[in-house]
Amino acid sequence: MELTAMGKAAKAAALRLNTLGTQAKDRVLSAMAQALMDHMEEILAANALDMEAAGENGVPPVMLDRLRLDEARVAAMAQGLRDVIALPDPTSETDYMVERPNGLNIGKRRVPLGVIGIIFEARPNVTADAIGLCVKSGNACILRGGKEAIHSNLAIAGVMDRAAQAAGYPEGGIQILSDTSREAAQEMMRMNGYIDVLIPRGGAGLIQSVVQNATVPVIETGVGVCHTFVDASADLPMAAEIAVNAKVSRPSVCNSMETLLVHRDVADVFLPMVFPMLEERNVELRCCARSLPYAQKGVAAIPENYDTEYNDLILNVKVVDGLPEAVEHINAHGTRHSEAIVTRDYDSAQTFLAAVDAAAVYVNASTRFTDGGEFGLGAEIGISTQKLHARGPMGLKELTTYKYVIYGQGQIR
Amino acid sequence: MELTAMGKAAKAAALRLNTLGTQAKDRVLSAMAQALMDHMEEILAANALDMEAAGENGVPPVMLDRLRLDEARVAAMAQGLRDVIALPDPTSETDYMVERPNGLNIGKRRVPLGVIGIIFEARPNVTADAIGLCVKSGNACILRGGKEAIHSNLAIAGVMDRAAQAAGYPEGGIQILSDTSREAAQEMMRMNGYIDVLIPRGGAGLIQSVVQNATVPVIETGVGVCHTFVDASADLPMAAEIAVNAKVSRPSVCNSMETLLVHRDVADVFLPMVFPMLEERNVELRCCARSLPYAQKGVAAIPENYDTEYNDLILNVKVVDGLPEAVEHINAHGTRHSEAIVTRDYDSAQTFLAAVDAAAVYVNASTRFTDGGEFGLGAEIGISTQKLHARGPMGLKELTTYKYVIYGQGQIR
Repeated sequence: MELTAMGKAAKAAALRLNTLGTQAKDRVLSAMAQALMDHMEEILAANALDMEAAGENGVPPVMLDRLRLDEARVAAMAQGLRDVIALPDPTSETDYMVERPNGLNIGKRRVPLGVIGIIFEARPNVTADAIGLCVKSGNACILRGGKEAIHSNLAIAGVMDRAAQAAGYPEGGIQILSDTSREAAQEMMRMNGYIDVLIPRGGAGLIQSVVQNATVPVIETGVGVCHTFVDASADLPMAAEIAVNAKVSRPSVCNSMETLLVHRDVADVFLPMVFPMLEERNVELRCCARSLPYAQKGVAAIPENYDTEYNDLILNVKVVDGLPEAVEHINAHGTRHSEAIVTRDYDSAQTFLAAVDAAAVYVNASTRFTDGGEFGLGAEIGISTQKLHARGPMGLKELTTYKYVIYGQGQIR
Repeated sequence: MELTAMGKAAKAAALRLNTLGTQAKDRVLSAMAQALMDHMEEILAANALDMEAAGENGVPPVMLDRLRLDEARVAAMAQGLRDVIALPDPTSETDYMVERPNGLNIGKRRVPLGVIGIIFEARPNVTADAIGLCVKSGNACILRGGKEAIHSNLAIAGVMDRAAQAAGYPEGGIQILSDTSREAAQEMMRMNGYIDVLIPRGGAGLIQSVVQNATVPVIETGVGVCHTFVDASADLPMAAEIAVNAKVSRPSVCNSMETLLVHRDVADVFLPMVFPMLEERNVELRCCARSLPYAQKGVAAIPENYDTEYNDLILNVKVVDGLPEAVEHINAHGTRHSEAIVTRDYDSAQTFLAAVDAAAVYVNASTRFTDGGEFGLGAEIGISTQKLHARGPMGLKELTTYKYVIYGQGQIR
């Protein structure tokens, strides 16, 4: 089987990567960045094939834009790799070392996860980004991109792998599936013993398929039904700015707001303030019975609305009786991604932070900040919405695990 | 469905547990310990039913001993709960908090995982231990024990749950399946949305069944094919002590040694030293061609031996040409649990620690130390052999995750 052979090669590479130092990895990143620039024509020619096929298949314009590469976008990928060089090596740390009463010195050393599988959709820049983060963290990777971008992905990964090997990276450390069939993806999801963790990046359908079918450990990413709760004590102009930003600054991403919750005590002041700001930015409002009268063009919300990730200029609005109802609504309908309260009340802030179950909980800020760069983690490989291993933005450290290292002098038990 | 109702109750309890403080949880632990003592007769009577059924079903003596409870064993369970009170609350920490350039203060706060599912076999003391660790870490738990111990498990969990609720613990926070069918276990493995993590504790068959069938995140535990490599420069009497300890001190546990690797340069001195020590302790030796001549009653090893967890007084022996072959053998046949080198050579020690892929790597000590208590983690809920989330002994901290807590002053992006 092609995939088993790939798995074995990745495993062998991962074992060699355990002892590859930071300087060697940085040289590989630099060589890959240069190779992307040197092979610009080859990459753009491959992308042209994808664009042609997409055009013939009637792919919608927004998808076409995601798929399209040009010189600036390839240069941005190369720059992204150079930026990763500047980040600290996450495997250079020992979290702690203690001497036990029996004299054993026990330390917890950061090490690469091993082999990371990444299953992703459309955008070919994910190929370069993912390879860069895996190289810096010392992980072998097996990528499986969507069929729309297959020529671009193979070209990018091929250029990067050749440059990496020439710079001393082990063979098998960077691999990509040329087979974009569903069967190959399913087989990849069950490569226990070869893949240490699988990260799906894409829409809800892809992620659910991986969660349901994978037997290797998975980090679930991405779906975001995020809320902003405007408390009775909120600075209302601040709340309006935050709400508008959370909805309209980039509605297509997972950290944008889908539902605005408003304390009943301020609804009659706040809604007439924020609704015009939203509607003039073409936000379509889906309102509860108490908020609907304040909307110019709003429609009545149906229950399913509150569980929907629109990724679009659509917003649910609900007036709640207070903080407890807001927390209850969020814990029932949120996807454990990013949740915010706007308040001037100390207790409300602390209660919200403690009681809301999400990867990122905010007081007086836009949920749009949930991002590896904004959190100071450097580049990110995705945003985890599960609780195991990593939660929220995953940077280089989240691509590592640890091993206990024990120095003895003959101790027995 | 019974299980769905249990899942909903657990989820509701988990949300309430997010805001339960350390003192309140410690009071619950204390009440549960007292309740075990107060209901001694009820628990022993339930255990008698299990013992009777086991006797009728011809359960082997070693299993009967694991199943059996007496006053001392129940008192030990109660003491175990009191010991957990003394451990620090893992959810009381914020790993760090930083102020970003835009003024956002971003902290990483430790929080409970939520709902933990535990599927385990025979020994009823696991019920009390697991509940204690889940209470201290603020997690709701759903337990599913084996049918052999069902009366004991239901009695113990019932006594503890009633005492916990009387002391203020939320209803649904401690639950156990009365249905021990395979179907119920399979359903539990697919309770996405209700169970945040599933921990199987038991033999290889149970663990593989969970890994293959679960759609909720799993922490794989336990199987240990552990090695000790005696390097050319080893202090040979120390090496012999370590090898004997690693094999015979408790052969039934996962951190005991299954294979002894010996550098060829010292085989003719070391094997005549260690083999009699092992054979006089009734260890059955399965030897490679180069080591077999030194054994009194050894047999020739077959390839499968090197991949077998005996959990018994059986030991594979292999003479290797040096450190590289030892590392290669361990990475090919080990289960990423605990691996040791005995050496006086600095470079050999450091190379072994870096190149061997395992949860715990030792220099000059017995692999038998891989244990939560020995590592200073307090009680343990299992030993992870996967790389995601937790590796090696899992204590209270490994039953937590984190949330990003962000304090703003109106920041938008």
